[in-house]
Amino acid sequence: MKASQEGSPLAIFMISDSVGATAQKVTQAGLAQYPQLAIDEIRRFPFVRDSQTLIPILEDALKEQAIVITTLVSDQLNQMVEEFCTLHGLDHVDYISPLMRIISRRTQLKPTRQSGSIHAMNKNYFDRVDAIEFAVKFDDGRSPRGFLESDLVLLGVSRTSKTPLSIYLANNNSLKVSNLPLVPEITLPKEIFQVPKEKLIGLIASPRYIMRIRQERVKVLGLGQGSAYDDLSRIKSELLYAQKIYDQLGIPVVNIENKSIEETVVHIEAILNQYQ
Amino acid sequence: MKASQEGSPLAIFMISDSVGATAQKVTQAGLAQYPQLAIDEIRRFPFVRDSQTLIPILEDALKEQAIVITTLVSDQLNQMVEEFCTLHGLDHVDYISPLMRIISRRTQLKPTRQSGSIHAMNKNYFDRVDAIEFAVKFDDGRSPRGFLESDLVLLGVSRTSKTPLSIYLANNNSLKVSNLPLVPEITLPKEIFQVPKEKLIGLIASPRYIMRIRQERVKVLGLGQGSAYDDLSRIKSELLYAQKIYDQLGIPVVNIENKSIEETVVHIEAILNQYQ
Repeated sequence: MKASQEGSPLAIFMISDSVGATAQKVTQAGLAQYPQLAIDEIRRFPFVRDSQTLIPILEDALKEQAIVITTLVSDQLNQMVEEFCTLHGLDHVDYISPLMRIISRRTQLKPTRQSGSIHAMNKNYFDRVDAIEFAVKFDDGRSPRGFLESDLVLLGVSRTSKTPLSIYLANNNSLKVSNLPLVPEITLPKEIFQVPKEKLIGLIASPRYIMRIRQERVKVLGLGQGSAYDDLSRIKSELLYAQKIYDQLGIPVVNIENKSIEETVVHIEAILNQYQ
Repeated sequence: MKASQEGSPLAIFMISDSVGATAQKVTQAGLAQYPQLAIDEIRRFPFVRDSQTLIPILEDALKEQAIVITTLVSDQLNQMVEEFCTLHGLDHVDYISPLMRIISRRTQLKPTRQSGSIHAMNKNYFDRVDAIEFAVKFDDGRSPRGFLESDLVLLGVSRTSKTPLSIYLANNNSLKVSNLPLVPEITLPKEIFQVPKEKLIGLIASPRYIMRIRQERVKVLGLGQGSAYDDLSRIKSELLYAQKIYDQLGIPVVNIENKSIEETVVHIEAILNQYQ
């Protein structure tokens, strides 16, 4: 059931004075509400910073009767889009002006109107890049000294999302995160016992959930059958071992079952906030 | 110059039925326009899915005269917020309804009204997680067979942002990206010559830019002085070597100088689109 059969076909033009990543995120959230919708065309126009660049894009949008989505900080360009869309009856969503208007009114402050401010290469930016490099470097218990330099260490058996969680927390929270796979046969590195408790979180899920994910993994990697990796009783004993370690260390545990990375992170953040 | 001196202090309440990551991104883009603004409090309320949870939050927002930012897909909850904010004169920005209204009107389709649809654990989600794990696993030329399985291989001398770029492209574009550090003294792995040209991109910047970034690195890592790492003539010869390799392989080159990861990715995407 495609949109072109259901109603009129849709094109979306995203126009930004920077890279357009913000517009893309919000637009995706909206579109996710219409899984049956086939968008004909989503076109991203980054770095649009003057009217000579903007006008031909608007004219193309008109030809395609596209929904125009903008994140432009220039007052002049925003007015131009507004007037063009009103004049020609084009649908328009502006994801930056409404909040800016409120803030300016309430604080009497003027916005910088500088394009791409969110990508400014300031200390925050470099902290975030450092955190990502840290997470990559110290993934999978690669170097035990990483545990002592970490803001957070995630522990868990295989397939508890340790790696993507570490990367996400680095990218979004600028935290230096390392992780340690728990395997009953492998002694914990001594550094783990030197990490302050409030920097450790254990990950958990039900044996059947882990089994299903490992089975998928086995298929994708084309591994042979009959390995212990996706054997339910083996997984149960791994998880019992993990829980024993968490008890021993006295650390909080987060259940990752049926949660996306973004959802699990909310629970991790709640734990970290308690310590603050 | 803080806001509390300039105008009234500001609190922001972000209310979402899912994790609130979308609301956070757009809000940050707006706030980046006011670097001089000290926000008293940004509070995130994730997983708000019923009126019993919503109403006490709105009452707190009223007490603090907060700007209310919502990404709620429920019609009923949105109406409740709208009425409450109108009644009490609270500022409100809704980042999800405007686009949904347009799409519903133009396509006659009904939204699913399912919270957290954007975090659905579907094939796209798992492809993205796989891509992130791939990027971590094959970072820094760690295992040459990774080059042959990659959607994209980034080449560059130290400090050309290979790692964060690989991770970003994995997370945002679900591409399997590996990267190879170029060092004049180290022979290229033979696998690089087997990778199709359209899957290779070289990274570059001016010697002085690389030098400045390496000097920062040396400080952060507390390395000793006098190493070749941040020596300008050494860096020049590394970059000449890199350019020679790019010419030899016949691959496109992206200049990363003064660009954030997000900005560089736009240029990489433009190159990848040309091949499609």
